[in-house]
Amino acid sequence: MSSFLEEHAAQVRQAADRIRPHVRRTPCLTTDLDSGLRLKPECFQVTGSFKVRGAFNAILSLAAQQPRPAGVIAVSSGNHAQAVALAAASVGLPALVLIPEDANPAKVAATRALGAEVIQQGITFANREERMREEMAARGLTLVHPFDDWNVIHGQGTAALELLADAPDLEVIATPVGGGGLLSGTAISAKHHNPATRVVGVEPAAADDAYRSWKAGSIQTLAAAPTTLADGVRTTSIGARTFEVMFANCLVDEIVTVTEEEIAAAVRVAWNRLHLALEPTGALPLAAYLSGKLPKGRTGLILSGGNANLETVATLLRR
Amino acid sequence: MSSFLEEHAAQVRQAADRIRPHVRRTPCLTTDLDSGLRLKPECFQVTGSFKVRGAFNAILSLAAQQPRPAGVIAVSSGNHAQAVALAAASVGLPALVLIPEDANPAKVAATRALGAEVIQQGITFANREERMREEMAARGLTLVHPFDDWNVIHGQGTAALELLADAPDLEVIATPVGGGGLLSGTAISAKHHNPATRVVGVEPAAADDAYRSWKAGSIQTLAAAPTTLADGVRTTSIGARTFEVMFANCLVDEIVTVTEEEIAAAVRVAWNRLHLALEPTGALPLAAYLSGKLPKGRTGLILSGGNANLETVATLLRR
Repeated sequence: MSSFLEEHAAQVRQAADRIRPHVRRTPCLTTDLDSGLRLKPECFQVTGSFKVRGAFNAILSLAAQQPRPAGVIAVSSGNHAQAVALAAASVGLPALVLIPEDANPAKVAATRALGAEVIQQGITFANREERMREEMAARGLTLVHPFDDWNVIHGQGTAALELLADAPDLEVIATPVGGGGLLSGTAISAKHHNPATRVVGVEPAAADDAYRSWKAGSIQTLAAAPTTLADGVRTTSIGARTFEVMFANCLVDEIVTVTEEEIAAAVRVAWNRLHLALEPTGALPLAAYLSGKLPKGRTGLILSGGNANLETVATLLRR
Repeated sequence: MSSFLEEHAAQVRQAADRIRPHVRRTPCLTTDLDSGLRLKPECFQVTGSFKVRGAFNAILSLAAQQPRPAGVIAVSSGNHAQAVALAAASVGLPALVLIPEDANPAKVAATRALGAEVIQQGITFANREERMREEMAARGLTLVHPFDDWNVIHGQGTAALELLADAPDLEVIATPVGGGGLLSGTAISAKHHNPATRVVGVEPAAADDAYRSWKAGSIQTLAAAPTTLADGVRTTSIGARTFEVMFANCLVDEIVTVTEEEIAAAVRVAWNRLHLALEPTGALPLAAYLSGKLPKGRTGLILSGGNANLETVATLLRR
């Protein structure tokens, strides 16, 4: 086993110890669909998504530094925003979150309710990175990147650590892939547990930059944020660190893409047969499983979150 | 502790051993709503509801008898039908299920898919008991009653047994109440665990026969099957055995009623905040909790099932 893998796996275990008082140990579920299937429903995680794992690991680490940072900043329209807001509030650090103007008002309200300052005015998907650098410089804030940060990656790897403790004989593990934080952390945990485990990332065909980066062997960037039901994985490219884990170190075996129709069908199966109220992004691994795109064998699906837009889901359920 | 309670609690433990290979141990969930709340999501149970616990306990017991029964019969338009079909198929007994003509076609198909013979033609809510007696006599079948059967009651009590093993310090436990099988089994497990535990049944105000039976001290019967979102508790009266457990032996402390609007709100909270795709009946205890109708203290809610009509739920989500 490589020292790269050994070292990062040790840091995932440290992350698990660090975040344990703050996050929930989600269960491992079996289903009526297939006796070989195991689900890790991160929709039951604190704030409704796995994102608190990485955010707490990063922010607890920052808060332990001397001198203490002035505060943290994040850019997100979704689950990372709430995770950073909660983690910062828990350690008493101010948090500023930039959220694009067209974001779901419910998510903005939830982020504010967790105590973060939110700036929305004039923020777009295109200019948000620039606005973030301005605010960081002006206020001396520390960035909590949604995926390209080792502490975030190690925190996200704790979900697979729990899943493999509950189901040690899994042969395949699949997660959604956007920027690659969850997939990288999962790959570290899974390959350290058993190098023969097949680790698969699932993304919408409309947002296939991870697939193209895997095929090309270098980071490929989408020209614009894609339109997809899976609004949690609209990032235009993976990061340098997640590329290093997933593809340079070959800890991910495969990237699989699914169509919008396959995502919609998976949301319906999740709600109707599994009784899990998943958001479309959280259903990506299920979509790949249901459409026969995952390798065969005992399979674990990390279902990343449940913060769905109810209007969208109501429409999907009626189809 | 009464010998009645001791004896029935021992039979719940025997039921747990008997059904263990066939049912799922559902998790105990914590939530972001209230740190003192514990959920037992029976929507993740085999077939999507707790009903398999009682059906397996009854049918495994029947199948062990000499001579073996010719087969089993049940009357149900919902979760009990699927539970009996699966349990009978598992032990190789024929099952006949009478389902009213106006039942949800998806549930009829699911019951048939599990290997049961289904008769629908000419079956109504009003004549189904009479038709059942005709078929029992003609074919020599043994009835698996949905609630007024000791083996069924003991099987249903295994859900609370698991919940209390996971959360031994609960002060309040609430379940839906229709015929009273789940509530009776829960009361046996909870009062045996700790006689100070408050055991509460929740029913729709539109179907308040258990409430009125509790107040009157005798079984009260509704004039007709009520109309309610909670279509799993449309029974017109509780049974002799469930009355004996709940009210004659005072193992249930209170029956609480909730309005249709409170049920709808609970389904939305379940789907939106808890990420549990519950059926309205399964959300009854949550409705009582959210509307402040449960006693104070560390509370466990047994959320009985998830087999919702998606059209109904899509409408609720849009409100």
